Amino acid sequence: MSTVTLEDARRVIAAAEARAVEVGQPMNIAVVDVGGNLVAHVRQDGAWIGSVNISINKAWTSRAFDIETKALGENSQPTQQFYGIHATNGGKVAIFAGGVPLSRDGVVVGAVGVSGGSGEQDQTVAEAGAAAF
Amino acid sequence: MSTVTLEDARRVIAAAEARAVEVGQPMNIAVVDVGGNLVAHVRQDGAWIGSVNISINKAWTSRAFDIETKALGENSQPTQQFYGIHATNGGKVAIFAGGVPLSRDGVVVGAVGVSGGSGEQDQTVAEAGAAAF
Amino acid sequence: MSTVTLEDARRVIAAAEARAVEVGQPMNIAVVDVGGNLVAHVRQDGAWIGSVNISINKAWTSRAFDIETKALGENSQPTQQFYGIHATNGGKVAIFAGGVPLSRDGVVVGAVGVSGGSGEQDQTVAEAGAAAF
Amino acid sequence: MSTVTLEDARRVIAAAEARAVEVGQPMNIAVVDVGGNLVAHVRQDGAWIGSVNISINKAWTSRAFDIETKALGENSQPTQQFYGIHATNGGKVAIFAGGVPLSRDGVVVGAVGVSGGSGEQDQTVAEAGAAAF
Repeated sequence: MSTVTLEDARRVIAAAEARAVEVGQPMNIAVVDVGGNLVAHVRQDGAWIGSVNISINKAWTSRAFDIETKALGENSQPTQQFYGIHATNGGKVAIFAGGVPLSRDGVVVGAVGVSGGSGEQDQTVAEAGAAAF
Repeated sequence: MSTVTLEDARRVIAAAEARAVEVGQPMNIAVVDVGGNLVAHVRQDGAWIGSVNISINKAWTSRAFDIETKALGENSQPTQQFYGIHATNGGKVAIFAGGVPLSRDGVVVGAVGVSGGSGEQDQTVAEAGAAAF
Repeated sequence: MSTVTLEDARRVIAAAEARAVEVGQPMNIAVVDVGGNLVAHVRQDGAWIGSVNISINKAWTSRAFDIETKALGENSQPTQQFYGIHATNGGKVAIFAGGVPLSRDGVVVGAVGVSGGSGEQDQTVAEAGAAAF
Repeated sequence: MSTVTLEDARRVIAAAEARAVEVGQPMNIAVVDVGGNLVAHVRQDGAWIGSVNISINKAWTSRAFDIETKALGENSQPTQQFYGIHATNGGKVAIFAGGVPLSRDGVVVGAVGVSGGSGEQDQTVAEAGAAAF
């Protein structure tokens, strides 16, 4: 089984951090492995303390459903097919932008989660992280 | 890093209490420090017991995201960018009016949370508290 | 039904604070009413942040079982009659010194909980608070 | 009030990782700031997934009570003054070796928590981390 090593996670986080600096918004960045378990997390100085949990949950959610949290969110609005999913799994399911799967040979083997700014900011930072995987 | 002392918290609470008396609605009032940890709480006689938790959570939320809970609530409605955030952080994220950051030299160093009446009442009492900081 | 007013709680807290200053250990002090619901809490500057929750739980426990938490603790050790009680009520039952009932005309109508030092320190500060009721 | 920056946390984690390699046991290492909020976490390849939470909780506990978790544990055994504390704070209080405060000018401003091996192994890795602060 392929997974995400600590070295992989650090490369992803470094790329995400660099993008956050460009965006000008300090971020929480978390990476989980194929089992959805945390490999590494950083909170940049000044980033929201309420986003520690959210960054980890976004990463977990992306791996748990092999999907970007942004896309899951679109399916989780009132009247949509997954409405209510955010209350499952002990509240660990994040349904807004910032969680992106990490894939190898077309298979999801982990994910990165970013929280600390607007949905658009979180998404671009997470994408930069994923691109470095 | 600056924070909120107990003396600060008492001054904020006294101003909020006075405003609650003017409004004619007994309130729960809570103040947290820079780390989001509770410094002081009071429940005025007759105030809702279900609002003890909410006042503390509003204060925590305002510091955790450096934002008024009223503004966070606008971004957390269905289809908005933070929809679902109320289910994160173990349910501690309050997304309705009454939480206001406490700032010093332009930096958020704590927050006040108020719960016990309508959103409008909670908000005006919280603002009166924050103005005394 | 008699209970603890905010004015009562403030008198109890003031006496407890004074004793904590004498003892030389900053404390968290919480008061609950006849329903076990929080009336007021203060954290003195420098007091442990892990004791916010414990002070509130000690006060709740003292009212919930109309007993000092120190006495409950003696009955809650392994092999004793209440062993395991600390895991009930969602973890709100504190079984170490620092929670003291507040009585009026021989009836428990609330409680004070103190946390921030040794068991002996917490107990003397709680007793000073209760004596002012 | 002083705190722990991400740069500080990385220095602490690097020293702890190096010690874990010497010990030959992969570890989870977490650092929290003055408010008890997570700054950074790493799980070395092969480290226990059940220790992600424990490393974070050990760091939180050390800061929350300004004490090594090893020392807190000694006071939290049956019949000791803090017995039952592990059930408070929503189960976040870790009472076994591996959490060490980070101090600056004699004041605790954060903590490091390590989990992944025996108590002795966790402790030596945490001490190595703290020594680098």
